[in-house]
Amino acid sequence: MFVQYPNHIRKKNHQIVSYGNRGMDLENLLNLSNSYYENSNIALIYKKPTPIGVVDVHYSPKGKVIDKAFFKAPSTLDYNGLYRGKYIEFEAKETKCKTSFPLHNIHPHQIKHIKNVIHHGGIVFLIIKINLQIYLLDGDLFLHYIRTHQRKSIPFSYISENGYLIKEKIDPPLDYLSVVDQIYFGGKL
Amino acid sequence: MFVQYPNHIRKKNHQIVSYGNRGMDLENLLNLSNSYYENSNIALIYKKPTPIGVVDVHYSPKGKVIDKAFFKAPSTLDYNGLYRGKYIEFEAKETKCKTSFPLHNIHPHQIKHIKNVIHHGGIVFLIIKINLQIYLLDGDLFLHYIRTHQRKSIPFSYISENGYLIKEKIDPPLDYLSVVDQIYFGGKL
Repeated sequence: MFVQYPNHIRKKNHQIVSYGNRGMDLENLLNLSNSYYENSNIALIYKKPTPIGVVDVHYSPKGKVIDKAFFKAPSTLDYNGLYRGKYIEFEAKETKCKTSFPLHNIHPHQIKHIKNVIHHGGIVFLIIKINLQIYLLDGDLFLHYIRTHQRKSIPFSYISENGYLIKEKIDPPLDYLSVVDQIYFGGKL
Repeated sequence: MFVQYPNHIRKKNHQIVSYGNRGMDLENLLNLSNSYYENSNIALIYKKPTPIGVVDVHYSPKGKVIDKAFFKAPSTLDYNGLYRGKYIEFEAKETKCKTSFPLHNIHPHQIKHIKNVIHHGGIVFLIIKINLQIYLLDGDLFLHYIRTHQRKSIPFSYISENGYLIKEKIDPPLDYLSVVDQIYFGGKL
């Protein structure tokens, strides 16, 4: 499992200065948060390994080594797991575009998958970093947008009005499960 | 997603003789069954890609190509997903040993993970092919055995007495969810 702790810079006088999570990318924030959730016995949520197609391998004393392989397109979302007895699945994306979230970020088979997760009673959402802010957008509200609009992107205003802002903090760096509590366990939706 | 259909051999008189799933390995049976479950809108269950550590890549016109990588040890179980609103996770193993299931097949961090899935309210089990039979062994009964015995393997008798036999059929080739229905939704446990 990938674990990376916040950067610390040790100054000459041995005082430790924490630069916290400033500038850390969304995937790192989520991996750190998921490690925190697992270690604190709160949830079991993992990033799925990117599926690869292996072409060639050879055997070394340390085990099998891949000599040639390629990345496959994912047909599900990046993260899934178990929280409060419920199945959770989500995709995390950052965009540099400030006014909208381009929909080419989400593959058509992933859209179908979001529908399927809802159908089978799971919790499904997107975590979108846009305009230096991080939002959780419920899967059903995401599907609603693409059903009712013929656009290639979701405007920032739709995300900020219908999504829930996730605040960055220390532990976990991105406490998205407190937002999940509000939306899916607190009756706000 | 991997899909493989049962082998058919076309005889000279054009009659199609199906050899069904005879000799198909457990992973193929499960992948076929999971495709069936997804296409029939019954469940969403996937084999997780084996995690790899990528060492070198290069870029070709068709995309990124991995030139060197190695397989990592998994810290969770091989399959997870969503069925009837519930989180499901399991490991599938075959053994050629007829009298017992060697416990080195399950890593210590996977044993910890099974405990965690139970703690968080998920359904977790092993599917074990032993003696040409396929059994579903509930995670809690698996943990019970290793808690109460200092042995390096689980005897076949424990698996056949405490596990549930999964029968091979045509569609899906391995209908383990009908056994899940009995155990986790029918109140037999």
